[in-house]
Amino acid sequence: MSEDELIATIFAPLAGPGGLRLEDDAALLACVPGEELVLTKDLLVAGVHFFADDPPDAIARKALRQNLSDLAAKAAEPKGFLLGLVLPADWQEDWLRVFASGLADDAAHFDIALLGGDTVCTPGPLTVSITALGSVPQGEMVPRGAAKPGDHLFVTGTIGDSALGLKIRQSSEADQAWIGGLETKSQAFLRQRYLLPQPRLGLCAALRAFAHAAMDISDGLAGDLAKMLRVSGVTAEIAIADVPLSAAAQAALAQDPALIETLLSGGDDYEILAAVPPEKTALFEQAAAAAGIPIHCIGIVAAGTNPPVFRDNAGQVLALKLLSYAHF
Amino acid sequence: MSEDELIATIFAPLAGPGGLRLEDDAALLACVPGEELVLTKDLLVAGVHFFADDPPDAIARKALRQNLSDLAAKAAEPKGFLLGLVLPADWQEDWLRVFASGLADDAAHFDIALLGGDTVCTPGPLTVSITALGSVPQGEMVPRGAAKPGDHLFVTGTIGDSALGLKIRQSSEADQAWIGGLETKSQAFLRQRYLLPQPRLGLCAALRAFAHAAMDISDGLAGDLAKMLRVSGVTAEIAIADVPLSAAAQAALAQDPALIETLLSGGDDYEILAAVPPEKTALFEQAAAAAGIPIHCIGIVAAGTNPPVFRDNAGQVLALKLLSYAHF
Repeated sequence: MSEDELIATIFAPLAGPGGLRLEDDAALLACVPGEELVLTKDLLVAGVHFFADDPPDAIARKALRQNLSDLAAKAAEPKGFLLGLVLPADWQEDWLRVFASGLADDAAHFDIALLGGDTVCTPGPLTVSITALGSVPQGEMVPRGAAKPGDHLFVTGTIGDSALGLKIRQSSEADQAWIGGLETKSQAFLRQRYLLPQPRLGLCAALRAFAHAAMDISDGLAGDLAKMLRVSGVTAEIAIADVPLSAAAQAALAQDPALIETLLSGGDDYEILAAVPPEKTALFEQAAAAAGIPIHCIGIVAAGTNPPVFRDNAGQVLALKLLSYAHF
Repeated sequence: MSEDELIATIFAPLAGPGGLRLEDDAALLACVPGEELVLTKDLLVAGVHFFADDPPDAIARKALRQNLSDLAAKAAEPKGFLLGLVLPADWQEDWLRVFASGLADDAAHFDIALLGGDTVCTPGPLTVSITALGSVPQGEMVPRGAAKPGDHLFVTGTIGDSALGLKIRQSSEADQAWIGGLETKSQAFLRQRYLLPQPRLGLCAALRAFAHAAMDISDGLAGDLAKMLRVSGVTAEIAIADVPLSAAAQAALAQDPALIETLLSGGDDYEILAAVPPEKTALFEQAAAAAGIPIHCIGIVAAGTNPPVFRDNAGQVLALKLLSYAHF
């Protein structure tokens, strides 16, 4: 199968109107007066950001969802995406068809059309590069760097599941004790959280209406929070007990209390961190509830430029060895 | 150097206003009423699309220019780009600084700002993924698939230089005779044409005003022409003698007449192929001349759906073994 045949038979059916049937040099996107475009790009490398033997549809969906999570954090509605696919020399047509079917399912589910892209071969590992575009009403993108002292810090969902799921996948000797102590369904839940992020696009309207600042938590809560606070020129104290954990993560933590570090600084959460001024927290909570998205307040933004502090129930500061999971 | 330090010190200085100092999750681009956006994405893999030991600034510039060539072919003015950089495990900071300096030079020269991107590491080869955005007045993108019978087919510049430059770089046994017969400066010219494409952005206004269809020639004239004609539902005859060749390519062809196949079907020309209706060819030629871009008419579009035919001076049809250089 040549590159042209591959595009015509496997990817062209996914193309939206601006994709020009993937028959042109480029895609075309109308500018809507009063809107701004939000653009994000993420790269995923097999063996680094996912397992090469993950189901191909899950790889495609994770690649797209990582980008959708960035759009959600900016309160942008998905508009279209470009796919860069770097295939290893031994790629199989069946594998690619399942990859494309996962992408098609998610593109339909999240209402985002394929606009174009490029497909090449590499002597290295499978690499997926997606560029996603979203739109916001002019001036309403929620920035990362505008948290203010007094803002309440909220996170969506639960934190750290995916980092535990990765450890379960890696199954190193050091983790056998707590993994063995978890129920099978808890293990499956955590693995699934690593495999397939849930972009919080339902929160877009609430973020636009009520948040000063937001970002998606992709490299671990501790590190990403530190980034938000640094670019905002503020600091914060986080009550560890207020960080929302899933039942599976609580069970793992009960087996091995040292996992708190993994939960707070592991990556791939794809939850949203948002700073909301105190007078708007009630409205934000109502809007999130109406959208069916669980949120929890984990601390308050304060004046100052020290790195954020994570404090336990006994008032002790947790010294994190690493703030973020570093693929790099 | 961490990913964050790398972005802050090496790439943030290249960011345009919409790049938000590369400190946010995404980039922001205003929609200009009356404009449409044109989007293109190209992937380049070391050892496949360029030589891993090419100068890093040239690699960066080639990656950007390939995308600019796509924008030029659509008559779109450059607006911004996102950079996906997949670094091999042994990447060096010095290498990266030179890469970034080449990118900065070209971004300034072509007036296109860095908006964002992603940087990751791979156990495989260096891979560069650029997504470029351009703009056209609404409805004025020049499509690939709208060539009409009677249109004159023009190409910019000269054809096949880059394919010869690649052969000189590869220096296989079979090519030693004609390479050895070329002057050093001709060899250098052809190598440079492979190393550094010249996107024909100066032709944008002329294409918008006068062309029915256009595309950039990236995979070889024969194959790319066949694509344009196929999606347009037409055919054409090309007079080989009318295909513009550089003095260096003519010298190589004199050494080895079989190189005509390489010239017509080799890749990486990054010239523009345009179909212009007969009543506008004079104006198109004037506009191209005013923009300082050499163009030549190589044939006429005809009704029919046969693949295009390349005919020599004796009236013989040249049977091309491969229409395009296939990296894939």
